[in-house]
Amino acid sequence: MSQYATCHACHWKVCIEMNPSKLMLSENELALATDFYELTMAAAYFNAGHLDRQAVFEAFVRKLPRNRSYMVAAGLEQILEYVRNLTFTEDQISYLQSLDTFKQVPGRFFDYLRRFRFTGDIWAVDEGTVLFPNEPFIRVEAPIVEAQILETYLLSVMNFESLISTKASRTVNAAGGRDVVEFGSRRAHGPHAALLAARASFVGGCVGTSNTLAAYKLDIPAFGTMAHSFVMNFENELDAFTEFNKVFSHGFLLVDTYDTIEAVKKIVQARIPAAGIRLDSGDLHFLSVESRRILDAAGYTNSKIMASGDLNEHIIKDLIDRGAPIDVFGVGTELVTSRDDPAMNGVYKLTAIKVPTTEGKYKVLHRIKTSPGKKTHPGPKQVFRIVENAAIKTDIVGFEDEPAPENSTPLLKKYMEAGRVVRQLPSLKEIQRLHKEQIKMLPGEFTDLDVTMNDFPVRFSDRLEAATQQFKV
Amino acid sequence: MSQYATCHACHWKVCIEMNPSKLMLSENELALATDFYELTMAAAYFNAGHLDRQAVFEAFVRKLPRNRSYMVAAGLEQILEYVRNLTFTEDQISYLQSLDTFKQVPGRFFDYLRRFRFTGDIWAVDEGTVLFPNEPFIRVEAPIVEAQILETYLLSVMNFESLISTKASRTVNAAGGRDVVEFGSRRAHGPHAALLAARASFVGGCVGTSNTLAAYKLDIPAFGTMAHSFVMNFENELDAFTEFNKVFSHGFLLVDTYDTIEAVKKIVQARIPAAGIRLDSGDLHFLSVESRRILDAAGYTNSKIMASGDLNEHIIKDLIDRGAPIDVFGVGTELVTSRDDPAMNGVYKLTAIKVPTTEGKYKVLHRIKTSPGKKTHPGPKQVFRIVENAAIKTDIVGFEDEPAPENSTPLLKKYMEAGRVVRQLPSLKEIQRLHKEQIKMLPGEFTDLDVTMNDFPVRFSDRLEAATQQFKV
Repeated sequence: MSQYATCHACHWKVCIEMNPSKLMLSENELALATDFYELTMAAAYFNAGHLDRQAVFEAFVRKLPRNRSYMVAAGLEQILEYVRNLTFTEDQISYLQSLDTFKQVPGRFFDYLRRFRFTGDIWAVDEGTVLFPNEPFIRVEAPIVEAQILETYLLSVMNFESLISTKASRTVNAAGGRDVVEFGSRRAHGPHAALLAARASFVGGCVGTSNTLAAYKLDIPAFGTMAHSFVMNFENELDAFTEFNKVFSHGFLLVDTYDTIEAVKKIVQARIPAAGIRLDSGDLHFLSVESRRILDAAGYTNSKIMASGDLNEHIIKDLIDRGAPIDVFGVGTELVTSRDDPAMNGVYKLTAIKVPTTEGKYKVLHRIKTSPGKKTHPGPKQVFRIVENAAIKTDIVGFEDEPAPENSTPLLKKYMEAGRVVRQLPSLKEIQRLHKEQIKMLPGEFTDLDVTMNDFPVRFSDRLEAATQQFKV
Repeated sequence: MSQYATCHACHWKVCIEMNPSKLMLSENELALATDFYELTMAAAYFNAGHLDRQAVFEAFVRKLPRNRSYMVAAGLEQILEYVRNLTFTEDQISYLQSLDTFKQVPGRFFDYLRRFRFTGDIWAVDEGTVLFPNEPFIRVEAPIVEAQILETYLLSVMNFESLISTKASRTVNAAGGRDVVEFGSRRAHGPHAALLAARASFVGGCVGTSNTLAAYKLDIPAFGTMAHSFVMNFENELDAFTEFNKVFSHGFLLVDTYDTIEAVKKIVQARIPAAGIRLDSGDLHFLSVESRRILDAAGYTNSKIMASGDLNEHIIKDLIDRGAPIDVFGVGTELVTSRDDPAMNGVYKLTAIKVPTTEGKYKVLHRIKTSPGKKTHPGPKQVFRIVENAAIKTDIVGFEDEPAPENSTPLLKKYMEAGRVVRQLPSLKEIQRLHKEQIKMLPGEFTDLDVTMNDFPVRFSDRLEAATQQFKV
């Protein structure tokens, strides 16, 4: 199977040609980053003459991931960016036209795709907001073809970023004020997921990331220490520490390659001015206590202790409860995969259709689904949040046009109008700050790691309940 | 917070400016898609004068994900693509130089990054190959700075694609010859993970994907039916089916929006020529048996039944064992997140250093790590696979330069030499075919869903064991 060829890239005969873009995701390809059925449905709506039908879709989560008592909304910025730039290239259109599946679809549909822009409105809750099951995160109102095409991309972004923000928020809560850094790039679901996970972790309260690209692009503080390979490269451990310290005098030294306690002793005996040490294996409680004692006795009172190695919110809480003197937790796999439940089951459901009338107005038709276990509520909705004594008391899910309940604040805000972004997006730091305020407003039992709440402070408005009853199954 | 501005993109005053590239991952950014410590270590190696040290790194999995008895190697194509194109842009270098962390690093290091190309060799097992714990998937031999910088990206790709190929392989095994289609884009960890998951699922044996971009770029068959929203858009279900059928006469009709059995009856009574129906909720065994009966009685014997809705390998096996007449399984969340264990814990470990000698040769120094539970074996390795009676008998992990055991085949092949790809990469279909052959060679207990093997047909060669013993802890 081994072959040789002339390479287009390097013009050397032993380099085999590769197509460098096939496995990446380019910005101009996003129109096809969608389920195939969104496009077949679009063609069928078009063919049925439904171009002027306005649809209302709402994205929400029916059931939180296992062990969760709240979720953190995230991903909106990326969704708006996608919607705003959504167009089909000629290549993509030719591809669809070439498929057997599309051979009965009239050519006018492809002309429609050539001109496609999203022209609708989008309401959404601010990123960083705490939500409960069945509360809409996003409401899309647009011609049905446009609204349908958004579904897959919108859900994949909202589901993933909210999943990781939620896990980060729990982990940061567990750390009770000590720093949590996201360290998971190598276990994230590919390099783009690693970038998004770094962002979502910051939303949830992490102080930084090991992902350099996230630091570069999103202005998240970059963290890093050293790997075991660095220590192993040198003939002895102390040489490794000394060499590292020459260029990174504020660096953390990794002490568990051979024998943790011995390594800490070597550092203090050699008077290497370490800003901190990192423990990555073994009994982290014992090792942190012992290391702290050695460091303090040698006058290294300002040197910090970082711990890592398959940490999660439960292990962190246990370490803190037992008094482990750990200053920084590096959390990887468990955080960026949301390992105890790696999926947020957000759905995107049609709740109303506005059919044009002969008088140039719209008739609003409510829609619900009655599949077992998957029932929905009809109509365009708003979430009215009532806060009392600085704590979330009740969220009332009602029709968007019903009078706001007393002392309530609507959570869904208009971010897009006629395809244009009309609301300033906050910075990532502002989103993190907003999330921290939200956590303070959450009653204590919702942040308790040992409890999973099934009873949420959410109710549907009387009008909404009455409208739901009208649909007989 | 609501503000208005003039938009650079559309010159309309209500469109707020956004930076469209911030949340995507471009090909020319990949050099920073790495853990920060890879770059600080690179600077320290450079400063210590280790540019001419050759390092040997090996990537392997210590412990398979929960419930797995084998893993499927995947991700190599993307890794080679990355390595081959890896360069630092001036912008990225300026960014690193601007960071406090790098302020003691000599300017020569940044000049080195400006000229950076990977110049080493890479051995790897073919994608689609079945592997067990502790068997190297990839071996990298290169100057230590170069080999170190690859770590994060290489692992994130190998870990994710192998994770999903492995889950797909299990799912396809469970389906016992019936078709499995990957339907998970909306629950994948973002849109790029969705693309990679579609590829990995195909490697593992899925017949297609719902991800249009994967179909377009990777030539995987695209599948799709319709969503509940499509049915709900119409005044009644039958109108929806009729309209869809007008343009997609070979389409599948989704029958569970209101009442599944009623919907199937409506289809046959109206004589809509459905190529198939999709069940997405309820008791899939009962509904498939009942639907098959109605379809057959009405002469729809060629119409297929597809089932979907939180399926996984166990549910599929159970449905088949109970005789459910389901022809196609659409598997989403469980597959693309590998939900029962969403992380492959691949690691990348230094196993040897080649230090230049004054005679122009290299002295090979073996390296191992002795952290508790994380011990490694020293030296550059090969996996020698012995197949007897068309079944995998033993894999012997030995030094790359020891004589191959009788009747064995080496699994690691040279894919890159001096930074150039020297081995033709197989097509995705060829990879899938290779994997199917591998599954046939796997003893039955390794594909049994009810058993998780702890005893693998892997042993270390005598020479390797002896070399490991020489390292005293």
